[in-house]
Amino acid sequence: MNAVAEVRTSARVPECDIRRTGLLPEHVTEFRRQGVLAVRGLLTPEELADVQQAGKALIDRAWSTRPIDDHVWTLEPHLPDAAPVRIEYVVDKARPIALLAGHPLLLRIMEQLVGPNFIPTWDSLVFKTLAGAPRLAWHRDAGLYTDAVGVTGMGRVIDAGIYLDPAPDDNCVWCIPESNYWDGERLTATAERLNASEWDTTGAVPAVMQAGDVLLHNILTLHGAPAVVGKQRRVVYFEYRPAEVEWELGPHTEDYIGIKQQVLRSCIEMRAADRRFGDEEPFDYRPAESLRRWVDRPELTTLRVPHEEYWRW
Amino acid sequence: MNAVAEVRTSARVPECDIRRTGLLPEHVTEFRRQGVLAVRGLLTPEELADVQQAGKALIDRAWSTRPIDDHVWTLEPHLPDAAPVRIEYVVDKARPIALLAGHPLLLRIMEQLVGPNFIPTWDSLVFKTLAGAPRLAWHRDAGLYTDAVGVTGMGRVIDAGIYLDPAPDDNCVWCIPESNYWDGERLTATAERLNASEWDTTGAVPAVMQAGDVLLHNILTLHGAPAVVGKQRRVVYFEYRPAEVEWELGPHTEDYIGIKQQVLRSCIEMRAADRRFGDEEPFDYRPAESLRRWVDRPELTTLRVPHEEYWRW
Repeated sequence: MNAVAEVRTSARVPECDIRRTGLLPEHVTEFRRQGVLAVRGLLTPEELADVQQAGKALIDRAWSTRPIDDHVWTLEPHLPDAAPVRIEYVVDKARPIALLAGHPLLLRIMEQLVGPNFIPTWDSLVFKTLAGAPRLAWHRDAGLYTDAVGVTGMGRVIDAGIYLDPAPDDNCVWCIPESNYWDGERLTATAERLNASEWDTTGAVPAVMQAGDVLLHNILTLHGAPAVVGKQRRVVYFEYRPAEVEWELGPHTEDYIGIKQQVLRSCIEMRAADRRFGDEEPFDYRPAESLRRWVDRPELTTLRVPHEEYWRW
Repeated sequence: MNAVAEVRTSARVPECDIRRTGLLPEHVTEFRRQGVLAVRGLLTPEELADVQQAGKALIDRAWSTRPIDDHVWTLEPHLPDAAPVRIEYVVDKARPIALLAGHPLLLRIMEQLVGPNFIPTWDSLVFKTLAGAPRLAWHRDAGLYTDAVGVTGMGRVIDAGIYLDPAPDDNCVWCIPESNYWDGERLTATAERLNASEWDTTGAVPAVMQAGDVLLHNILTLHGAPAVVGKQRRVVYFEYRPAEVEWELGPHTEDYIGIKQQVLRSCIEMRAADRRFGDEEPFDYRPAESLRRWVDRPELTTLRVPHEEYWRW
């Protein structure tokens, strides 16, 4: 079991050097226990450059056209100090990000952690520009279930943050390991205590990342980030959920499952057909038969699937 | 990925040759998808012989003393045609079975599939004697949750059947792959149709086992077995659940979690102290800190933990 050395359980995020060891049982267990895992070196330098260029184009366009739809700003976008911080549905907006969504190593990790019926839910570009970004307060992510710790405490709803820029310890996400198993009372008390001052990292570990790395976090894991000025950091976020959870518990409708499976299959096909990825084995998406909801659906006309058209709650 | 050849997805139960390959990602995915996995050759011949002898002693004692407590009979035990078919709390009744409950390979599989906070729940010896046993009707196991497919469809509540005798195809459990994802309506309709005749295996696969193999099944997977006469077959069943599910959703109380963790730790310690297992690396049980419920509990006086004293529902 020399692979045990790969997993660091001290005061830092556990990590997996994916191209050297693959995802080992030890990595799976550390992710399930701690609610966070840094996957090092997922993107090749070529793919990273493509996605960086796509990210830059999306952000430049936001600055020049100041759109409201699908964009989040620090202030109303017509105000002179407003800065964009987030763009939704980026799989539809940039081909390199759609190709990234079909990445076979990323999808094999999701198959192991979320299960064979995983579906993509959110796809966003989140960024800090040189204009600065406010503190990200300590929080659990949205879309929690009743009895959330029982349903997803082990980490079946996962946010994968694909870093396009380095995140050093003064400009990175911090997480509290194992907070994914905390009950609501402990979580709320801790978040309130930490958020009472401008930036308190008691009990937390920094997720220091390099460009091309991926940070996986269980959406129940308490996390936050300090305010920064004058530093750029761009992250593509893909969230994944098990179709059987979406089907029985939401937050999206049943229709959403089949549509997002079509999106995933399209991204896998686009990547398989692209000669730059000709030496890769494409991901083989095989959910259980009763959860193959793409069958008999009309062909997709877009990869943009607005959440608000499919809410169940 | 030459390991893919290990997994057979045709009309038979997927299998894992545990001492040759370990539990591969492909095995995890097949178990999660199909709801069943045959783990071949878990027990060494020496350990198998010990557990067989313990099983024989328990069954012989049942026949000679005809007890009611902790024993299930085909008829009232004082009736001449009555035969015993099941004995509960066998970890407490036979040292080789307690040692088996500390088996490091078995527990590492459970850590991967159930998660790091797995706890043992049921421990039973289920058997068919030469006196025969009735059909086991098609069913899901007990202790299901509301929204069961969302909560445990991927297989976080697992029954591990450790075979002490071979189960050939005329005397084995049959399962319907992927039925772990079926909704209640489809499940009930199918079970009623199959149970309408004496023995119908439409859509099912036989779980043919050798002594020393372990059959893992998701408790949501539809399964059954034909009536047999004149054939012996003994299986030790250990069920496992995630502590975070037990804690939020039951069926046992919160106290039960800590007590069963004490039982598990005792079994691991007994095995580690036994010179026959001196060359094994003991299992390192490390649930998340908030789910280490054995801390500060009084010392155990027994390994027998009756379910009815800890029901929450």
